[in-house]
Amino acid sequence: MERCRLLAGYTEEPGRITRTFLASPMKEVHALISGWLKEAGCAARIDAVGNLRATKSGADPWVDPLVRAGPPGPAARPAFVIGSHLDTVPNAGAFDGILGVMMGVALVEDLAGRALPYDIELIAFSEEEGVKYGVPFIGSRAVVGSLDACLIDRISGAIRDFGLDPAAIPDAKLQGNVRGYLEFHIEQGPVLEHLGLPLGVVDGIAGQSRLMVHFEGKANHAGTTPMALRHDALAGAAEWIGEVERIGREVPRLVATVGLIQVEPGAGNVIAGAAHASLDVRHVSDEVRKSALRSILEAAKAIAQRRGLSLRTEVSLDEIAVAMDPDLIARLMRAVAAEGLPAHAMTSGAGHDAMILAPHFPAAMLFLRSPGGISHHPDEAVNVEDVEAALTCGSRFLADLSGAGPCPAHRAGPERDHA
Amino acid sequence: MERCRLLAGYTEEPGRITRTFLASPMKEVHALISGWLKEAGCAARIDAVGNLRATKSGADPWVDPLVRAGPPGPAARPAFVIGSHLDTVPNAGAFDGILGVMMGVALVEDLAGRALPYDIELIAFSEEEGVKYGVPFIGSRAVVGSLDACLIDRISGAIRDFGLDPAAIPDAKLQGNVRGYLEFHIEQGPVLEHLGLPLGVVDGIAGQSRLMVHFEGKANHAGTTPMALRHDALAGAAEWIGEVERIGREVPRLVATVGLIQVEPGAGNVIAGAAHASLDVRHVSDEVRKSALRSILEAAKAIAQRRGLSLRTEVSLDEIAVAMDPDLIARLMRAVAAEGLPAHAMTSGAGHDAMILAPHFPAAMLFLRSPGGISHHPDEAVNVEDVEAALTCGSRFLADLSGAGPCPAHRAGPERDHA
Repeated sequence: MERCRLLAGYTEEPGRITRTFLASPMKEVHALISGWLKEAGCAARIDAVGNLRATKSGADPWVDPLVRAGPPGPAARPAFVIGSHLDTVPNAGAFDGILGVMMGVALVEDLAGRALPYDIELIAFSEEEGVKYGVPFIGSRAVVGSLDACLIDRISGAIRDFGLDPAAIPDAKLQGNVRGYLEFHIEQGPVLEHLGLPLGVVDGIAGQSRLMVHFEGKANHAGTTPMALRHDALAGAAEWIGEVERIGREVPRLVATVGLIQVEPGAGNVIAGAAHASLDVRHVSDEVRKSALRSILEAAKAIAQRRGLSLRTEVSLDEIAVAMDPDLIARLMRAVAAEGLPAHAMTSGAGHDAMILAPHFPAAMLFLRSPGGISHHPDEAVNVEDVEAALTCGSRFLADLSGAGPCPAHRAGPERDHA
Repeated sequence: MERCRLLAGYTEEPGRITRTFLASPMKEVHALISGWLKEAGCAARIDAVGNLRATKSGADPWVDPLVRAGPPGPAARPAFVIGSHLDTVPNAGAFDGILGVMMGVALVEDLAGRALPYDIELIAFSEEEGVKYGVPFIGSRAVVGSLDACLIDRISGAIRDFGLDPAAIPDAKLQGNVRGYLEFHIEQGPVLEHLGLPLGVVDGIAGQSRLMVHFEGKANHAGTTPMALRHDALAGAAEWIGEVERIGREVPRLVATVGLIQVEPGAGNVIAGAAHASLDVRHVSDEVRKSALRSILEAAKAIAQRRGLSLRTEVSLDEIAVAMDPDLIARLMRAVAAEGLPAHAMTSGAGHDAMILAPHFPAAMLFLRSPGGISHHPDEAVNVEDVEAALTCGSRFLADLSGAGPCPAHRAGPERDHA
């Protein structure tokens, strides 16, 4: 936590924590983290998109438990990846992203002098928030080899300015036998605090639907148009917002939000002729999300019809849910339970780097309680006891993995790409 | 109607009808109207705030029916005022205001060669819409002597530029024995059209309450904050908008409108931390309006409390209702009924010059149906048959007034000043 606070001082904006993709303070952040890792006996390097990467080598020679009869050798030794991101939103808190990196550093330090039967690869992603280019997950996309040519073009200048070579981006792709991926992250929500729990095991990252819903009625004089003769777009939208909330409450683990509404002409003495509202629906099951979205849009249609309004909807985002790996979830649950804590499985309502890695490698996430549920804000915090609990869990998890049976077959899924 | 369309060509904005207080096209409008009145044997003059005024003299000598024994003389001859306004909103229609002036001109023309037992004073007000100075009714306020010194200061430059003398404003005040005031105006709403009626007799101008209602909750991540842990300001405001509409519908002749809502931070993926909504409540009875307003604000309070939101309200306007004169209402009703039309009494939800005159003189208004209820818009219209019916009613009304018994005592009321 002290390291997080120290690194928060390296910012593009004096007095605020703002550190975007390959901004110059990132160099000092890299230098400090590399120094700590070096002390832990671990050499760090910066890949072509600015991810800081370090390998804590496992025990050698390593015997593949599946091929105990075969010849042992370092080529086959698996790696387990621990990662999180170094960038921030503008005016951020001190923990989002970077806490996960510091957890990885601490776990590597904790292993000093010991070796696990696998390598630990630590990755501090250069970009997750999508601030600089409006596209998130640049760091983790490079690691799975899914940065498209167009995006590479756009970011090449920044990469060169940072002293890196965009031509080397393909080398950033994770190679070899990757056992899995673990990400520690603050929850960015109030659930764990509400439940009185320090830790939560993420079982999936919610799918998202985002839309704009447009109600159109008739703008008229608020003083001269009787209630019965109105086609009030805002009254219609308001009734629908009530339905969005009702459906959101009725369906377990669904969140449904109208966060934006704009009214035309937008004068106190004129009945609204048009109301434009956003809709954000998320659920860990794509089927549940789609069914809820259908109900919400049917409600809009019925309301518009009854009120003589016209209705138009535009989908701006339709992202599928991403499941975490069942074996790693089970191991994390055991590690949490071994702390004497209730093992709480929960959905992540926000996107994370784990979402990008999950279609390629078994992935897991451990959430730490967010005091006040505050996120992307200078008041963002974390409790020292929760960090301690997460570290102990992390150690147990790594140890448990050491005694691992065979890595279960990982089913690669489709990729999604929004936070 | 042809004259209205002709005068619509005198505008500050080519291609749109825009004629504000003492703008230069007003000179040509004055000249044209003065010409028509001159042909009708009536000399027009422009008073110090730019009102066009003309007197059609009544029969002489006049005998005051109340003092039949006394000496007859022109000093005691009463005047009946017919008025409406010449200014427009920006991008207006061709009839709002000016139709009432043309009705007065036509009634005076109709009387050519005849004399009523009272003078007719025609007033074409220079300003009613409040566009230029944000303060409406400059013309009629001058006529009742209620322009305040501060406003006179602000408008003096424009008055001088128009070639008039602000020092003469006190002379614009109506003097002598004023029998009453009649204003013809398009309805600016859909009620008469909905009822299939050409004319409506205004029995009062609604009182108005205007407020801003602020709901404050907690902005949070739309993806990570479960429905049960939200303090969604927009969801609260939406529920309240439903209550505003419900109360508006339940109370006869009440209109209650939320025409504006602004949300903070106003992003699709962030739960609204604050929602700022307007409220406009109007009724012809101040008691009914205040009671409805109480219910609406109690609903807001209950909703805020239940949802853990804070609530703040600001009153920006609290204008009392203005009743039209019962005797003149009854005479207008008779005139309408004599046309074989249902005599429909209705509230004016908008302010009019009649509202300014009513506390000083008996006042009445006759509404003409607005096709499509369209107002303050280039598509604003009026039906030729409705104008004919209104003219016949106006003639009957003036004739009826000729046989007038004593003018009933007029109770002066407080003044209000918003459209």
